[in-house]
Amino acid sequence: MTLGAPSAAVVSVGNELLFGETVDTNAAWLGRALSAFGIPVTRRFTVGDVAEEIEWAVRDATAVADLVLITGGLGPTPDDLTKSVVANTFGLDLIFDQEVFRALRSRYTERGLDDVPVSAYGQAEVPEGATTLENPEGTAPGILLRVPDAIVVLLPGVPRELQAIVEGALRPYLVSLQPGEGERIWHHVVHTTGIAESRLTLRIEERLAELDDGVRGRVGLAYLPDLHGVDLRFSAHGASQDEAMSHIMPCLEAIEDVVSPYRFEAASGDLAEAVCQALRERNLTIATAESCTGGLIAKRLTDTPGSSDVFIGGVVAYSNDVKVEHVGVLVSDIEYHGSVSEPVARQLAHGIARRFGADVGVGVTGVAGPGGGSEEKPIGTVWIATCVGGDVQAFAGRYSGDRAAVRARAGQAALAAVHRRLVDAGRGLNP
Amino acid sequence: MTLGAPSAAVVSVGNELLFGETVDTNAAWLGRALSAFGIPVTRRFTVGDVAEEIEWAVRDATAVADLVLITGGLGPTPDDLTKSVVANTFGLDLIFDQEVFRALRSRYTERGLDDVPVSAYGQAEVPEGATTLENPEGTAPGILLRVPDAIVVLLPGVPRELQAIVEGALRPYLVSLQPGEGERIWHHVVHTTGIAESRLTLRIEERLAELDDGVRGRVGLAYLPDLHGVDLRFSAHGASQDEAMSHIMPCLEAIEDVVSPYRFEAASGDLAEAVCQALRERNLTIATAESCTGGLIAKRLTDTPGSSDVFIGGVVAYSNDVKVEHVGVLVSDIEYHGSVSEPVARQLAHGIARRFGADVGVGVTGVAGPGGGSEEKPIGTVWIATCVGGDVQAFAGRYSGDRAAVRARAGQAALAAVHRRLVDAGRGLNP
Repeated sequence: MTLGAPSAAVVSVGNELLFGETVDTNAAWLGRALSAFGIPVTRRFTVGDVAEEIEWAVRDATAVADLVLITGGLGPTPDDLTKSVVANTFGLDLIFDQEVFRALRSRYTERGLDDVPVSAYGQAEVPEGATTLENPEGTAPGILLRVPDAIVVLLPGVPRELQAIVEGALRPYLVSLQPGEGERIWHHVVHTTGIAESRLTLRIEERLAELDDGVRGRVGLAYLPDLHGVDLRFSAHGASQDEAMSHIMPCLEAIEDVVSPYRFEAASGDLAEAVCQALRERNLTIATAESCTGGLIAKRLTDTPGSSDVFIGGVVAYSNDVKVEHVGVLVSDIEYHGSVSEPVARQLAHGIARRFGADVGVGVTGVAGPGGGSEEKPIGTVWIATCVGGDVQAFAGRYSGDRAAVRARAGQAALAAVHRRLVDAGRGLNP
Repeated sequence: MTLGAPSAAVVSVGNELLFGETVDTNAAWLGRALSAFGIPVTRRFTVGDVAEEIEWAVRDATAVADLVLITGGLGPTPDDLTKSVVANTFGLDLIFDQEVFRALRSRYTERGLDDVPVSAYGQAEVPEGATTLENPEGTAPGILLRVPDAIVVLLPGVPRELQAIVEGALRPYLVSLQPGEGERIWHHVVHTTGIAESRLTLRIEERLAELDDGVRGRVGLAYLPDLHGVDLRFSAHGASQDEAMSHIMPCLEAIEDVVSPYRFEAASGDLAEAVCQALRERNLTIATAESCTGGLIAKRLTDTPGSSDVFIGGVVAYSNDVKVEHVGVLVSDIEYHGSVSEPVARQLAHGIARRFGADVGVGVTGVAGPGGGSEEKPIGTVWIATCVGGDVQAFAGRYSGDRAAVRARAGQAALAAVHRRLVDAGRGLNP
């Protein structure tokens, strides 16, 4: 139990989680759900279907957190131990609950079964003094228990059932635990792409160090890197989003010129969405000609709902014949410069825009590996060209990692190049 | 530290895990990887970027497990605390490692940077007495430390880097920890696609129930479903793979006729790899014409290294103009039947094979949503056609889920249709 702001711990129970047969998406979902109520999760435990292990986690969790959510192990099978272990841990008896049993029976008869099988009777038992939380999606209700220093909540492991209980019957309890005056943590995420994490971090931390400690101290900043870029997640407490943003804003202003060349905005966090949006705003269309990325860029653009407004189509020009016959690359340039070369990338971008009647064309050709590298053009070498309104620009990147990483990084770099050109050009293209 | 069989604990570090912004797929991957070495994970801890929390988890984990894997918090930013906390916990100094620094420098200069930025120097520090584990995918090496009663391994949080280290430099240590006599758990995975999990499970369990208890009792079976199909993972103990397979084989024989229409073989577990392999064995080539899947099938085929042997290329025929002008679909059929229709799918498959000079053509057109559905063609309706040696076959699927799920399921169904036709036709096509 902590003083001040409330905190939560999550205990996930199940051998399948430890063995990696199931990825624990419940824990992530609960982390987000509790954050939204201003209740940060500070520890998470994952244990198997073993009584001693469940008891250890429950004891430790209730010692450090105000709210302990335990998921899994509530079903009717012999390896579902959670309820009996929790009751034991706090010296409580399990009591047969008539109301839970009636709800259980009506679920079984709704499904066309005669009655509750004897093997499922245990689902109607709850620890004495507990409150049951209605489960509109399944047979096992949630169970809420007040123990010294903490509230313990048992939830089923089926995501749909767990989510329905948290958003339904548990909600008033979460509201009552929120910090005073409705204060909670708010996040503001800035998406960046095209700058290495180490370099971005260095430059941002330099700027933030210049701020007053009072300003900086109220704001948390996490760097969240992946193959596509680095997200900056700012967080601050506040009774409203406006109040939290008033703390975060001075930080955003301090780093503005550092991040502005690399920043994009997209609700999904995906640059492809930002590219579609930038095209839509400018009333422009796009087409793609991809060699080494093999359709990855087209796939990402069409992941975005409504992309048919702006995406005309593309050619996956994997063989040289397709590059020549279906996009219009010159055979002589392939022969002289090789298929991974600036002229070929340029002709892919220009050719696809012209043939497909698009305002913007993208051309990508490179060596994704694991084969095909040479001293002059090692694995990871990718030529990327963009054609906007007939004007072609090209650059070569050298991307690290395995085949999947090279393709992902090259695809992102191509989308970033289109985005940059659209945003830099402003509305000049389409007055 | 336990007696007898070795056990492992995993400590995942990162606020983003607790807040649920990132799902901890590393922990699941490590659970599977360690299982394969006969080293069960018995506890998992997830803590934030907070020194006291990391120290608590590391102390507890080393008290209960022989092998402690700590993921995350190895990067160059100020919230990357893992290395210094672990060193502190065991009273070790951090020492600047010249060899790690040289490797770091060569990675930076390969990327065209002048030198390692000062902010990244910390990445070259390792606790005294530690062994570094080469990271072929990134800058931060893994770190292995022998402490009283346990081996502690620090791994980067980027999945690709973590996996490369575990499968590379860490592997000999895992082998040395395996239970005595070389006895360990062996897995045999059967990939299936195109049959619902509930139906598959029912039919398989019926067959396995007919086996002797002695046979069935030695073999574990996990059903691992995802959007693309269901993997069946059989497991058995044995001093060798042959011994374990001698237990598993009777189960495989018992279910043979149930799974054979849906089974495919691919080291990566990806049906696209199996399709490339089937094409390669038959000396055939493929081309794709995709509307609603938007390049996803081409992307999956080209995920496979060496796919240029068999994949000629494709057209992402998103607009109707591209379908007509670049694949040869008849305008009249689009007008009369609509773009999501059997004739259009057939012409996409046939047209792309003919125009790209491929032996096999795939055509896909459907309604991925969220917009575009109608009473006659609701969201999830997808027409899929395959053309093999000029012969076109088509079918309509109705796929559930959101846009991403419909696209993923439709892409998988198209690849499954190609695979089935190639395997069913045997070598008849290419005598």
